[in-house]
Amino acid sequence: MATKTEDYLGIESYNVVGTRPIRHDGTDKVTGRAKYGADTHTSGVLIGKTLRSPHAHARILSVDTSAAEALPGVRAVMTGADLAQHYEDKVAAIGEESVNLPDLIKNVLASDKVLYEGHAVAAVAATSAHIAEEALDLIRVDYEVLEPVLDVRPAMEDGAPILHEAMRMRSLGQTTDKPGNIASHFQHSLGDVDRGFADADVVVEREFSTQTVHQGYIEPHNATAYWNLDDQITIWTSTQGPFEVRDQVAVVLGVPASRVRVVPAEIGGGFGGKFRVYEEPTAAVMSRMTGKPVKMVMSRTEVLKATGPTPGSYMKVKMGATNDGRLVAAQAYLAYEAGAYPGSPVGAGAGCIFSPYDIPNVVIDGYDVVVNKPQTSAYRAPGATNGAFAAETVIDEICEMLHTDPLEFRLKNSAREGSRRADGPVFPRIGHDECVKAAMASDHYQSGLDGPNRGRGVASGFWFNGAGTSTVMVSVNADGTVGLVEGSPDIGGTRTSIAMQVAEVLGIPAAQVKPMVVDTDAIGQTDGTGGSRVTFATGWAGYEAAVDAKRQMEARAARLWEISEDDVVFEGGVFKSRSAPEKSITFTELAGKLGATGGPVVGRAAVAGKAAGPAYAVMVVDVEVDPETGKVDILRVTIVQDAGKAIHPSYVEGQMQGGVAQGIGWALNEEYFYNKEGDLVNASLLDYRMPTCLDLPMIETIIVEVPNPGHPYGVRGVGEVPIVPPPAAVANAIYDAVGVRLRDLPMSPGRVLETLIRNSRGGNGRG
Amino acid sequence: MATKTEDYLGIESYNVVGTRPIRHDGTDKVTGRAKYGADTHTSGVLIGKTLRSPHAHARILSVDTSAAEALPGVRAVMTGADLAQHYEDKVAAIGEESVNLPDLIKNVLASDKVLYEGHAVAAVAATSAHIAEEALDLIRVDYEVLEPVLDVRPAMEDGAPILHEAMRMRSLGQTTDKPGNIASHFQHSLGDVDRGFADADVVVEREFSTQTVHQGYIEPHNATAYWNLDDQITIWTSTQGPFEVRDQVAVVLGVPASRVRVVPAEIGGGFGGKFRVYEEPTAAVMSRMTGKPVKMVMSRTEVLKATGPTPGSYMKVKMGATNDGRLVAAQAYLAYEAGAYPGSPVGAGAGCIFSPYDIPNVVIDGYDVVVNKPQTSAYRAPGATNGAFAAETVIDEICEMLHTDPLEFRLKNSAREGSRRADGPVFPRIGHDECVKAAMASDHYQSGLDGPNRGRGVASGFWFNGAGTSTVMVSVNADGTVGLVEGSPDIGGTRTSIAMQVAEVLGIPAAQVKPMVVDTDAIGQTDGTGGSRVTFATGWAGYEAAVDAKRQMEARAARLWEISEDDVVFEGGVFKSRSAPEKSITFTELAGKLGATGGPVVGRAAVAGKAAGPAYAVMVVDVEVDPETGKVDILRVTIVQDAGKAIHPSYVEGQMQGGVAQGIGWALNEEYFYNKEGDLVNASLLDYRMPTCLDLPMIETIIVEVPNPGHPYGVRGVGEVPIVPPPAAVANAIYDAVGVRLRDLPMSPGRVLETLIRNSRGGNGRG
Repeated sequence: MATKTEDYLGIESYNVVGTRPIRHDGTDKVTGRAKYGADTHTSGVLIGKTLRSPHAHARILSVDTSAAEALPGVRAVMTGADLAQHYEDKVAAIGEESVNLPDLIKNVLASDKVLYEGHAVAAVAATSAHIAEEALDLIRVDYEVLEPVLDVRPAMEDGAPILHEAMRMRSLGQTTDKPGNIASHFQHSLGDVDRGFADADVVVEREFSTQTVHQGYIEPHNATAYWNLDDQITIWTSTQGPFEVRDQVAVVLGVPASRVRVVPAEIGGGFGGKFRVYEEPTAAVMSRMTGKPVKMVMSRTEVLKATGPTPGSYMKVKMGATNDGRLVAAQAYLAYEAGAYPGSPVGAGAGCIFSPYDIPNVVIDGYDVVVNKPQTSAYRAPGATNGAFAAETVIDEICEMLHTDPLEFRLKNSAREGSRRADGPVFPRIGHDECVKAAMASDHYQSGLDGPNRGRGVASGFWFNGAGTSTVMVSVNADGTVGLVEGSPDIGGTRTSIAMQVAEVLGIPAAQVKPMVVDTDAIGQTDGTGGSRVTFATGWAGYEAAVDAKRQMEARAARLWEISEDDVVFEGGVFKSRSAPEKSITFTELAGKLGATGGPVVGRAAVAGKAAGPAYAVMVVDVEVDPETGKVDILRVTIVQDAGKAIHPSYVEGQMQGGVAQGIGWALNEEYFYNKEGDLVNASLLDYRMPTCLDLPMIETIIVEVPNPGHPYGVRGVGEVPIVPPPAAVANAIYDAVGVRLRDLPMSPGRVLETLIRNSRGGNGRG
Repeated sequence: MATKTEDYLGIESYNVVGTRPIRHDGTDKVTGRAKYGADTHTSGVLIGKTLRSPHAHARILSVDTSAAEALPGVRAVMTGADLAQHYEDKVAAIGEESVNLPDLIKNVLASDKVLYEGHAVAAVAATSAHIAEEALDLIRVDYEVLEPVLDVRPAMEDGAPILHEAMRMRSLGQTTDKPGNIASHFQHSLGDVDRGFADADVVVEREFSTQTVHQGYIEPHNATAYWNLDDQITIWTSTQGPFEVRDQVAVVLGVPASRVRVVPAEIGGGFGGKFRVYEEPTAAVMSRMTGKPVKMVMSRTEVLKATGPTPGSYMKVKMGATNDGRLVAAQAYLAYEAGAYPGSPVGAGAGCIFSPYDIPNVVIDGYDVVVNKPQTSAYRAPGATNGAFAAETVIDEICEMLHTDPLEFRLKNSAREGSRRADGPVFPRIGHDECVKAAMASDHYQSGLDGPNRGRGVASGFWFNGAGTSTVMVSVNADGTVGLVEGSPDIGGTRTSIAMQVAEVLGIPAAQVKPMVVDTDAIGQTDGTGGSRVTFATGWAGYEAAVDAKRQMEARAARLWEISEDDVVFEGGVFKSRSAPEKSITFTELAGKLGATGGPVVGRAAVAGKAAGPAYAVMVVDVEVDPETGKVDILRVTIVQDAGKAIHPSYVEGQMQGGVAQGIGWALNEEYFYNKEGDLVNASLLDYRMPTCLDLPMIETIIVEVPNPGHPYGVRGVGEVPIVPPPAAVANAIYDAVGVRLRDLPMSPGRVLETLIRNSRGGNGRG
């Protein structure tokens, strides 16, 4: 594999951390024994199916389920009205600070309006999938079809079709008094942007658009629910956030969270899209109606039409620099589609867009806008990729105008410890500088690129990273193995990356730790696997739990040797007596003596409220553009990323490569394609075109390690930031290859060709 | 329900301990949703079946599996030879102190000899149960049939058929040099028994026999195993001891224990019989052979023929007392059947037989004897019931000779704190006295009993109780519920009895604690559910884990109020500030603030090496004997038992009633009935006659509470001792009713009638 790890700062060496052991769940996964959500089997199970709206925007006038209920084999039929019952009570019960319950309930099952094609309207549970599907056809829904609005800019206009008659825009502390599709508007500002632009020698202002794209996880959403007579509800599901699912199911159903137990299955990809509940509450209600477990598994089409993609957006970005290559002002207008209900990642987009740089004068306006598409979900550094596409291509233009190397320019303007972000926070020690330097020093950037229609582009990316809450328990077995119990579903190898942090403390190999992901009743609060937080926070909890166990082991050694606990020291995997050097015992040996010295040792820890270490990535990409067809081939990619400390470098490299692959798909091919009625017409993986291995070269990786001073091993979190630079880097490379600036995603062959043709007629050309 | 709880010593009152909340797993069990072992479903599963010996004693000359292997649908065939492979390596790997590996392996699958009818010889895994059974018929085993020996006394004689040619008796530190069926002989002695008998005014010496009886659990043994390509083995099974199953499977298969994960299902009864592995290793090996999970579920006939019942026994007991009613000497000769391999509970029988009493001069000889029956397993106070049947009826004769009330006599001679047991230990605070007094004061004993052929009997019983190792984790959820993770399979309501001990510490209701029994990878070492240890030891671990959590909560309250931790006190479920009385917050309220004060709180504890508190029971029973048929009807029963502290009195009463019901079955009806070839001819629950509700009156219970000073709540453990008195008490009642002494179990109608007839001819009659 053409990847390379560079211990950039040459930090201290470890025994386990930084090595590449085999993952604990590898065999289960390659032999097909790992249990995914759809593998849930339970006796007497009913199969649930969902009836979905054929209209993008319509009022539900009536739902007649009588024919479906009469079909033999049908056990339950439910509608949005069933879920909306006791609605005010539920809202009152959860208080104001919780999730936006009305939207959550209506997205699960619409009761008054449908807001996107595929919006769930009713559901059936039957003795077989075929009967359930037949029953869906028998449900009669009368709709008053309304005009849809599908794009963010038309949705913001006066006179646009209104999705939520009662919604009022919150803007800078005010609430408007007339309905509209803008849910909220915020502004960040720093310095004096007008004076900044006045001081600038070059100013570039451009408009950009991106389309809705899906995370493209392979495993469809699924849920099996059983509501027992004692009102204990069990949910088996593939999810990034078992505790989040527990809490959402509880509030949607109006029951205490402790009544809901979520058993997380293995998960076939999530990327942010597997936090929100879809069919979990529906399955639970139909289980209560029937007294049987109810299983629901989405089709691919349902996943694409009715789960949360990341938003399309409209952006206007203006940046100014002085002739000596100093960024002095930046302004962004970001309007992101939220889909059917408020909650686009425009806030995160605003927090990220200029964060690789130290810019004294900034204004950013963000707009969260509802449109007749599925409600957006998180997708790997949500919101950041959109913004970076705009800012990083504007910077490329500025560099061209200043005749400056784009990496030199980035280094000169790089944010560093003490720089202030436009949204407020001051940076701790960060690694953008080091990433840019590593990119400049890379074999890729040092190599030439010859040939017609070929070009090179670079871009930087920023992501906050998350921290949140994690709980871990470790128990020392008599044979020296250590059970590690955690609540973080393992998407990218985190069983191993956490086990390694435990093993490092205890002086044993990673394979001697046996990680296990358990359900929400069997471990304390653990936030979901997202925000690049697991290796950071659950790893930290693992570290603390191991320290707790180690201290108890020291006490056991003291008891064994009849010496004081203060006299015991643990070094290099061996407990020793300071005063009597002949006394020493390995961790594994001492584990065998626990029964005789007081019983098993169990360590526990929870971490919460820690500050995560921000992440940076820099990408270099070479492309070749076919001027006849507009097709862009990726020739070579190098992704540089600051991991803080790479616990398991292979998995860090995997995250970097995966993020880049997804970013390139977003750049070149992927988009939700709606007809004017608002029907998604490419709702299959044949028509929704994600890159395959054949579309990409091996993605070269350079791990930079600027340790996060806020983590015991310096971990930052690595899962998200590599998706941020690709669209901008590819756009810059296309410009370098053929002299046209692409400002709308995806940069598909048709759009590239069209831009080339427009350019040849005297458009926006090179130089 | 005609039961009664008597707070005998009026000990301190609790909020939760001593109440009767609904059991946490009740709904799952009554709705059929609880998962038992046979409910294990996994894709691609093969069904395993076992070929069993039709002979009680035979040499295996050859096994031909070729025809079975050729049958379509058969995926694996294995024999004892497959399991015996690398046998010396396995023995070497586990060392001397571990289980008796050769016997364990040969009991799982015989390789050289079969030692009882039903002994497993070979196994098949196939795509269906029918194919597997058909394949069993195609396996040809050539046997050299040997004469069996089925009873303990013939087995001890010179010239008896020898089960194990290599076995030598260990007797009082010596090893004999010729083969025999006595595996071991031991002796306990106290004082000078000859002088004791010389001092006695009355001496009674009698011989007794009991038959093999089965625990009679409703759920058959089962095991599903999957051996993955990484040599990780998962076993799903209904067991009392997941960790014991893990360790046995590991040594039988010659793999480290950490490679084996045991997932305990719910369990439909065990009573001591569900600790040893039977088909678990077989299923695992066939899984390795096929790459598929293999599931094996025994039939009822297999359970009765080939799992461990409790032994038949021959006993001779001699006791002497002075005319003033003081026991001065006791002697016992106990020969217990071990079944096919050594390991009868004769040691426990010897430890219990005289332990209700303070007797200065005692000799006890114990013999462990192999016979051609299945290897015995534990059964509720194993070994104690046999001995008590002998000693407690001899005492009844002495009382009759001394014209003394049998409870007065027991009170006078009762063991108390400081009394020494014949096998060595000195008693701590115990409650036999209090039990006898409670029996004397009972409504039952104070009531008259009129009518012909009716009689009343009493008997005492003793059991050590167990302690062992348990690990518990608790985690505090934001809504104030507390997750309780434990490793003790719940047979008799221990989820609740442990949850109650946690709840008591935390000042919350039992229902606010959510207990969960997890697998061997998800919790630290926890010994099996047996020895009446769970409410004692896992409860204690729960108490300590809750204290650990409580201390952390106190620290959170301190942080919340910005005061010192020393200033926080927890009283009556409320955290308070000592110095600022206006500051107070309930446990549940504080739970909601953990996220903001440092994250989740997790408590953990392990207990090991604690001394259990001994248990006593006294039973009063009234019977009516039909002189025409010999049938004995139970008219009224009262069982008095010292629970130490009854955490959940209903479950204590349930244990008391269950133990008495089983003891009455053992007394009156139950026996393994072998023909002279050694075939078990009553291997069904139709022919193996256990009492039903219709056979028994409501069993009245009196809980005595003499707190165990060695447990935070005074718990002793209650599961076993109530089975000890019934056979003796019933025999004494029969004598009181019709004047004949029954000294052989079961006291079935035929045997009672025969004894009555013999007595009417001038036999061993009343007075």
